[in-house]
Amino acid sequence: MDKIINYIESNKDKYIEDLKVFLRIPSVSTNPENKNDVRDCAEYVEKQLRSIGLENISIYETPGHPIVYGDWLNAGDDKPTILIYGHYDVQPVDPLNLWTDPPFEPTVRDGNIYARGSADDKGQVFIHMKSIEAHLLNNGKLPVNIKFLIEGEEEIGSVNLDEFIAKNKTLLKCDYVVVSDSAMFDYDVPSICYGLRGLAYMQVEVTGPNRDLHSGSFGGAVNNPINALAHIIVNLKDDKGKILIDGFYDDVLKLSDKEREEFKKLPFNEEKYMEELEISELFGEEGYTTLERASARPTLDCNGIWGGFQGEGAKTVLPSHAGAKISMRLVPNQEPEKIEKLFTDYVNKISPDSVKVKVISLHGGKGAITPIDSPAIDAAVEALRLGFGKTPVFTREGGSIPVVNTFQTLLEADTILLGFGLPDENAHSPDEHLNLSNFQRGILSVAHYFNELSKIKK
Amino acid sequence: MDKIINYIESNKDKYIEDLKVFLRIPSVSTNPENKNDVRDCAEYVEKQLRSIGLENISIYETPGHPIVYGDWLNAGDDKPTILIYGHYDVQPVDPLNLWTDPPFEPTVRDGNIYARGSADDKGQVFIHMKSIEAHLLNNGKLPVNIKFLIEGEEEIGSVNLDEFIAKNKTLLKCDYVVVSDSAMFDYDVPSICYGLRGLAYMQVEVTGPNRDLHSGSFGGAVNNPINALAHIIVNLKDDKGKILIDGFYDDVLKLSDKEREEFKKLPFNEEKYMEELEISELFGEEGYTTLERASARPTLDCNGIWGGFQGEGAKTVLPSHAGAKISMRLVPNQEPEKIEKLFTDYVNKISPDSVKVKVISLHGGKGAITPIDSPAIDAAVEALRLGFGKTPVFTREGGSIPVVNTFQTLLEADTILLGFGLPDENAHSPDEHLNLSNFQRGILSVAHYFNELSKIKK
Repeated sequence: MDKIINYIESNKDKYIEDLKVFLRIPSVSTNPENKNDVRDCAEYVEKQLRSIGLENISIYETPGHPIVYGDWLNAGDDKPTILIYGHYDVQPVDPLNLWTDPPFEPTVRDGNIYARGSADDKGQVFIHMKSIEAHLLNNGKLPVNIKFLIEGEEEIGSVNLDEFIAKNKTLLKCDYVVVSDSAMFDYDVPSICYGLRGLAYMQVEVTGPNRDLHSGSFGGAVNNPINALAHIIVNLKDDKGKILIDGFYDDVLKLSDKEREEFKKLPFNEEKYMEELEISELFGEEGYTTLERASARPTLDCNGIWGGFQGEGAKTVLPSHAGAKISMRLVPNQEPEKIEKLFTDYVNKISPDSVKVKVISLHGGKGAITPIDSPAIDAAVEALRLGFGKTPVFTREGGSIPVVNTFQTLLEADTILLGFGLPDENAHSPDEHLNLSNFQRGILSVAHYFNELSKIKK
Repeated sequence: MDKIINYIESNKDKYIEDLKVFLRIPSVSTNPENKNDVRDCAEYVEKQLRSIGLENISIYETPGHPIVYGDWLNAGDDKPTILIYGHYDVQPVDPLNLWTDPPFEPTVRDGNIYARGSADDKGQVFIHMKSIEAHLLNNGKLPVNIKFLIEGEEEIGSVNLDEFIAKNKTLLKCDYVVVSDSAMFDYDVPSICYGLRGLAYMQVEVTGPNRDLHSGSFGGAVNNPINALAHIIVNLKDDKGKILIDGFYDDVLKLSDKEREEFKKLPFNEEKYMEELEISELFGEEGYTTLERASARPTLDCNGIWGGFQGEGAKTVLPSHAGAKISMRLVPNQEPEKIEKLFTDYVNKISPDSVKVKVISLHGGKGAITPIDSPAIDAAVEALRLGFGKTPVFTREGGSIPVVNTFQTLLEADTILLGFGLPDENAHSPDEHLNLSNFQRGILSVAHYFNELSKIKK
C-alpha cells in the first residue's frame, strides 16, 4: 500500500486538474438541450474507465441517457466483488445569477472546488476512478474484483436503471455495493451510512355533503370534511408523536445497544440545529434522541392538505371535500404494503360516520439496512480511519435511496454508503462545491477500502 | 279591508302582467354592460312609487347604482312608521343555456313566473308596492306611515348602502323595518324569520421550520405545521360539536321554551334533508335539534385549509407553513370582537410550542333578533294568517344579512323578515321563479300587515 499512498499523495494537484475536465461537461440530464453534453459525458466516463485500466467497458443505451459500465475481475474467485455505483449527470444550474463563478467553469477557492456536479456526484465518482487507477498503475492489479456502474439519469429519478439492473443481473452480480453520493456527518467526521428509511405515501380524501354549502345555513347541522380530516390526522399520532395506527410498530427493527452508542457519538448540536431551522422546540416520539427519531425510527407526516376556500378574504363555505397527503417513513423490516393496509384500516376505523373517507396509496418503498457488524462495514471503518486519520461514525439516513432497494432485491447485495461530500456543499443549489481535502482523503480511503475488503473471507 | 281584499283579488292577472314589465329589465348590478339597464330599472321603480301614490320620491345617486326612496307619512304620529327595504338589482344569468326560457322574458308555467329577479327580489318588492297601492287607491290612505327604500346593489354586497343610511338617519327614521327578500320555510308554510346569526371569521397561520424540509431527513425531529394545525382545529370543538373556546358560550342568548316549541312545529324531515345532501349522519352540539343547531346556536366551521403539497402524486415535503380559515356563526348577544379575542387567546393557549401561530380576524358581524313577542311580530302572525289562511311558523336564519345589523345599529329598529319565496326557487341559479299563489297571497298578507301594524300602540 505504501507505493499507492505515495502515488496518491504526489498526484494531488493533478487530480484536481483532471477532475476539472469532468466538471466542465454540462451534463444536465433534465434539459433536452444538453442531450449531446450528457452523451459527451458518458463518452468521457468510458474513456476514463479505459485509461484507469478497467476492462469490458461499454456504453449501454437506454431509452434515455446511457449507462457506462466497466470492470476488473482478475482478483480471483476467493476475493469479494464490489459494485461501485454513481452517476455522471448533474442538476440544472438555475438560478444562474447566484453562482459566484460559472457552474461549468470549475474554480478553486478556499480549499474547495466550485462547479455543478463537484459534490453530486462527479467528484465522488472521480474518487473511485482515481483509487482504482492508483492500484492498477502501481501494483498492476486490484485487491478485489470491481464492477463500475455509472448512470446518467440519477437526477431525473433513475428512470431506466431498474430495468437495466433486472436485465443484467449476471453482469452486475456482486458481494457488496459501494455508493459515494452522500455527505459526511460533518467536516472531519468520516461517516458510514448503513441504514435508509422506507416510505408509505398515502392520500386521504374526505367528502361531507354532496356540494359546497353555505356555512351560515348549514353550519351546526352537518359535519365539515375539513374538521373531520383534522380529527383523522390528530388521531394518527399522540401528542408526543407516537403513531397510533394498530400494529404499526410490530415489525420495526429495534435499535441495538451498539447502534444507540454510535448515535450518541455523533457530534450533533441540538441548539444549533433548532437555531438553523428557527424553531424553539423539537418534537417527536419519546424515548429516542432527535437523530434516532429522524433516521432510525418510523415517522408520520402530513405532506399536504387542502379543502374549501384558500383565497384572500372571507368566504363562508362549508366545503364538500377536503384531502391530505400523509406519508410514513418506515424502517427496515416494515413492509410498505402491510403498512398501507394498516393505515387504511385504521383511518376507516377512526373516521366519523358523518363523512365518507377514501384512502389511496400513492407510493411505497422499503427501507434498507446493512448490518453494522458486516465485514464490509468493518473494512470501511478501517479504511476511513486510515484515510482520514479518524475513526468514522455510523449514520442512518432518514430519507430513501430507491436504487439501494433495487440492489438489495435484484442483486441480493448490501450497500455501503461512503459519502465524501459535506451537508452544506449546495448539492442542488448555486455554488455547489466539494472540499478538496475530503476529495484527496476520499481517494486515499477508497484505495485503503479495496485493500481492506480483500481481507474478507468469502 | 274588504274593499282592499276584493280589489287585490280582482287584479290578480293584472299584477302578473305588471310584474313582467319590472322583470324584463336586465338590471344585473355586477355587469358593467348593464349599467344603463340598472339605471332604467331605478327609474322604473321611481315611476312605480309615484303611480302607487307615494310621496317625496327621489333617486339618490351613489358611487355605484342609485337608491330609490319614497314615503307616505300621513297616518299620524300615533301610528308606527314602517321602513320597507328591498332591491331592484338581480344576479347574473350564467349559465344561460340552462334556462328554459330567456331570463328576461318572463314566462308563466305551472303556477310560477319564471325570470331572473322573480323571487330575488323584484317579485317580493312588487308585493309591497301593490299592497300599498291597494290601500291608497281604495281608502285614500295607509293605516301606517310607510318609507320605501329600494337599492340597486344588494347582489354586489350593498357597497354604498351603509353610508347612505348613516347620512340619512332622519329620512329613514322608523319603528320597524320589513324586509321581503327571503324564503318561506316551505310551500303553504308562511314564515316569519325573527333571528339571524352573526359571524366571526378568522384565519390561523402556522409556521414550523423556516423552510420546506425533506420529510425523510427531518420527519420525526421537528413538528409539522399541518399536524399542528390539525391539533388546533380538533381542540376547538369536542367530538359532538360543542365549542371548547373558553367563555365562548357566556353571552349566548338562550332559546326560550316558546322558541323551542316553535322550532318543533316546523315541518322538517331529517331523512329527506340527509338524503338531499347525500350524508348518512347529521352532526352537531348535543341537546339541540338540527334546525336549532343550524340557526339558533353558535357554530364553528373550517371554511378552508391549505399547506404543503397539493398537486398530483407524492412529494415528500415537511412544509414550513399551513393555514386555515375558521369561522364562527354567532347568535344574538355574542359580540364578534369579544369572540375574536376569545378565539385568539384560546388558539394561542392550545398551540404547541414547537410551532409559531398567528391568528388574524378577517371579518365580523353581529347577529340580530327581533323579540318573538314584539307587537310587530304579533301583527305579522295575524297578517299571514289572514293572507294564507294558515298560522305562520317562526324561523331563525343561520346566515347573516348585514343590512339588518345596520338598521339595528343606525336606526335602532327591529327588522321583521317576511319571505314569500320558496327555498327551491333558484334565487341565484337558472330558471329562477316565483310561485304566483305566494305572490298573490303575499300582496294580501302585506295589505293586512299594514292594517295590523296600525293597531300597535306607540
